[in-house]
Amino acid sequence: MSASPLTLVALLYGPDQPGLVAKVSGWIFERGGNILHADQHRDMEAGVFFQRVEWIVADGADGEAMAKEFDAYARTLGMQATVARSDRRPRVALFVSKFDHCFHDLILRWKSGEYAADFVAVVSNHADLAEAARGYGLPYYHISVTAATKAEAEARQLALLKDLAVDLVVMARYMQVLSAEFLTASCPVINIHHSFLPAFAGGRPYHQAYERGVKLIGATAHYATAVLDDGPIIQQDVARVTHRQDVSDLIRLGRDLERLVLAQAVRAHLEHRVLVYGKRTVVFA
Amino acid sequence: MSASPLTLVALLYGPDQPGLVAKVSGWIFERGGNILHADQHRDMEAGVFFQRVEWIVADGADGEAMAKEFDAYARTLGMQATVARSDRRPRVALFVSKFDHCFHDLILRWKSGEYAADFVAVVSNHADLAEAARGYGLPYYHISVTAATKAEAEARQLALLKDLAVDLVVMARYMQVLSAEFLTASCPVINIHHSFLPAFAGGRPYHQAYERGVKLIGATAHYATAVLDDGPIIQQDVARVTHRQDVSDLIRLGRDLERLVLAQAVRAHLEHRVLVYGKRTVVFA
Amino acid sequence: MSASPLTLVALLYGPDQPGLVAKVSGWIFERGGNILHADQHRDMEAGVFFQRVEWIVADGADGEAMAKEFDAYARTLGMQATVARSDRRPRVALFVSKFDHCFHDLILRWKSGEYAADFVAVVSNHADLAEAARGYGLPYYHISVTAATKAEAEARQLALLKDLAVDLVVMARYMQVLSAEFLTASCPVINIHHSFLPAFAGGRPYHQAYERGVKLIGATAHYATAVLDDGPIIQQDVARVTHRQDVSDLIRLGRDLERLVLAQAVRAHLEHRVLVYGKRTVVFA
Amino acid sequence: MSASPLTLVALLYGPDQPGLVAKVSGWIFERGGNILHADQHRDMEAGVFFQRVEWIVADGADGEAMAKEFDAYARTLGMQATVARSDRRPRVALFVSKFDHCFHDLILRWKSGEYAADFVAVVSNHADLAEAARGYGLPYYHISVTAATKAEAEARQLALLKDLAVDLVVMARYMQVLSAEFLTASCPVINIHHSFLPAFAGGRPYHQAYERGVKLIGATAHYATAVLDDGPIIQQDVARVTHRQDVSDLIRLGRDLERLVLAQAVRAHLEHRVLVYGKRTVVFA
Repeated sequence: MSASPLTLVALLYGPDQPGLVAKVSGWIFERGGNILHADQHRDMEAGVFFQRVEWIVADGADGEAMAKEFDAYARTLGMQATVARSDRRPRVALFVSKFDHCFHDLILRWKSGEYAADFVAVVSNHADLAEAARGYGLPYYHISVTAATKAEAEARQLALLKDLAVDLVVMARYMQVLSAEFLTASCPVINIHHSFLPAFAGGRPYHQAYERGVKLIGATAHYATAVLDDGPIIQQDVARVTHRQDVSDLIRLGRDLERLVLAQAVRAHLEHRVLVYGKRTVVFA
Repeated sequence: MSASPLTLVALLYGPDQPGLVAKVSGWIFERGGNILHADQHRDMEAGVFFQRVEWIVADGADGEAMAKEFDAYARTLGMQATVARSDRRPRVALFVSKFDHCFHDLILRWKSGEYAADFVAVVSNHADLAEAARGYGLPYYHISVTAATKAEAEARQLALLKDLAVDLVVMARYMQVLSAEFLTASCPVINIHHSFLPAFAGGRPYHQAYERGVKLIGATAHYATAVLDDGPIIQQDVARVTHRQDVSDLIRLGRDLERLVLAQAVRAHLEHRVLVYGKRTVVFA
Repeated sequence: MSASPLTLVALLYGPDQPGLVAKVSGWIFERGGNILHADQHRDMEAGVFFQRVEWIVADGADGEAMAKEFDAYARTLGMQATVARSDRRPRVALFVSKFDHCFHDLILRWKSGEYAADFVAVVSNHADLAEAARGYGLPYYHISVTAATKAEAEARQLALLKDLAVDLVVMARYMQVLSAEFLTASCPVINIHHSFLPAFAGGRPYHQAYERGVKLIGATAHYATAVLDDGPIIQQDVARVTHRQDVSDLIRLGRDLERLVLAQAVRAHLEHRVLVYGKRTVVFA
Repeated sequence: MSASPLTLVALLYGPDQPGLVAKVSGWIFERGGNILHADQHRDMEAGVFFQRVEWIVADGADGEAMAKEFDAYARTLGMQATVARSDRRPRVALFVSKFDHCFHDLILRWKSGEYAADFVAVVSNHADLAEAARGYGLPYYHISVTAATKAEAEARQLALLKDLAVDLVVMARYMQVLSAEFLTASCPVINIHHSFLPAFAGGRPYHQAYERGVKLIGATAHYATAVLDDGPIIQQDVARVTHRQDVSDLIRLGRDLERLVLAQAVRAHLEHRVLVYGKRTVVFA
């Protein structure tokens, strides 16, 4: 019997000071931990230190206790930390509307083992993807949203996320804007915007891109925040287009970008590689 | 003695109608011409036909007369045409300030034979690159520009372009905004903007990009128009960046993008591959 | 009632000669056809002319007769031609083994309307994907293959392709080498190889790539020919890797490349954009 | 007066063991050093640990002594280390023949401050670039090479490298194969090969690429070793080509790749980011 060893991943940041690498790695070493990966970054201008450190805890150690201890230690260094444990798989809810390309892509990746996470729900303001979700064995929650019912619908969504102990919401082309209230109350939310932000924020970005005559189209995965399409960017990519592509071609080509960029962002988040500070992210490789 | 045969390149566009390809190619064939390349495009929505056609004229034919004849024929089809001749090399002026990376790059490409054109002048609002220009054997015109003297300076620049019979101005990181009056009076002007337009138009785009936390930086070559950074885009490209790159890194990495994107745009223009309509371009491959 | 108009696409090539563009476009125009797209290429060194021309035939014209007539006309010009009709959708068979990423990707693209074709069969040497295929409503033919039964299995496969009137076989990570006899007898076969050919032909290319320490991995879609991994290339792409990626990471990242490159190659083929000559392809944009 | 602080960069590798990060960072911290960057990698399969660590030494510390001390300490951990000092700029010799694109590019980057290094010599088997080198203020050593004089020429080259205390040779399209004897005796040598290795090793790679009909061309910067085009790869990149590009186009487009890939590899080496082990490299970001 060879279970995977228990590992912890800490993301921490705070004011830079000499000796942080030595202190953190020393703390882990003293407790019998073995560092698998450690990556640091300094924002020289802002004087901020960032670290992602992943380690195997000593045989028989209690992951939950160790995580709490580390968190407390980090605070003595003036750092904010979040600690994830390999024995606690994140729980993910997909929010979808009618477009299904990101929906299928994320679920197929999950089924093929690309994500160390549990997909626990598909939430939609439409019924269209209910059967497909059930075909994948995923419960489908149809919560319709209108201007009049939006507040109530969001309350139901939040209750559902709480019931299911969801850790991450992925907006897989969910075509509703989530309110600031929802975003404040919920776990982190990753959205995919179908343009190279900050260009073409808002509606119909492929139409905007076509009108402007750009030679590359893009997609951007970011954390949703109260300001539309303005949250911290996790991943972006572009594809070359020419005058030969009309708007429907851009939409089709864009689907490939959206799938890939969202999938990469979700993976980075689930591997605890993304640290948000201000409007920016550090994405550890 | 084997001179290159005389070739013409026509760029034409106008309302779409059946038979345009047959009519244009028939006209050329009847006059003993041999089509080397012909590329068409239809904007289905707008109902506009675009064509680039390049052909060897019959032995002994007069290029100038043939170009005029073709132009007249195109008008009978309701098309606007411009016709370029291989025996008339375009004349190029570089506008520069202090940054020298695009300046060196364009001149070295020209010297290595990449451009079928004559570089005839370097124009600058500073004296910094005078010696380097002369090292390349290029005349250098130092015309300083201040808010007070701008109109007069632009008048001198326009007079110079006229004297030298310049066909294309390339703003190789020229750090002055050319006025609408200048742009109306001058030959076409290609500018390089150091961002992925329309994101980060205006000043200090790398600082803007850093603040926004984008994961790709870009460069955009476009025709300068009266509205800053808003002209028809010829070429764009991007490079991946991470949180590790600070603003000075973005500036350094951006130089590689600026060089390449501007060089490609200038080449496309000099090979008569770029057709502007409205705010967009058709760039024939 | 507004049916799409009937269009023909001709791919033709042969010895270059003056007037080909005029003759072909004139022939179409005289018969009331309206050219939608025409793209030419000349291999100057080899003296070969290539053309893809797509046109709407005159109202009420018989597509099949017109295609035959065009074919005959092309022969009078010394050209070889193939003519496809929009009222005759190509029929596609997928060959798969156990890997399912290209399988799902191609079928989901087809279901979303990306391909003007009919997927008519999934053929496999394993039973693993039978249920998934049926979930998509596609018949599944399980024909197992061993060294001893290979000739017989291929005979059954060929009979099936004939029965189903298949026009294109797509090897979506089908892990058997098709014999020269099979390839001679069958319709065209597109294969995806999981490396940047000609680097790392043969088995376990990601292991080879890892051993060599390359900084980019690739995928190549090509027509299968009698020589393994040596057929004419239709599409290739690459992705950046670093020392951090081990073989299992390369395999995972490679799946994204394989999906995209194969999907693009299949689309180019189904849109009649690919002309093979010798070991090379012309892929019209 | 604010001199830059003295920094050291250590590259080390050896058998993996628990506590290496803690030990190395602890050693530095105890001596008053402040780590600026630390990056680790584990080859899990091979059980090898790799690290690049860059730190500011304590005020007034002796860089040379500290470097030696660190080297000795690393050995006690079973690690091999090389330590570079910011007060000792690497000395670079360019080897060139007749092609000048990489030559100009590297020198212009150096002059613009991109490399913390001293370019001290241009060595060539031809006289063609002598004047250009002198224009840049660089001494030019013309050492012609024939089959008969190769051994003698290489002896002269080695003597020159020794006299000039050269730390790095960059083959900027130097068209001679350096012998195993030369490579054993000399400092590291970086070469640029104009293909995506291992595809198209040897002569005329663009011709090979054209014949094979690839859809992407590449360039590869690697350390030269006794086996031609087989050394550890530092950097690679590719560019898209179509059937429209003939061999002369590939050569032209390839120059852009060669310039960029070689420049990036040289920068990575000069910043002490490249660790060679076996046939592979770790290139710390």
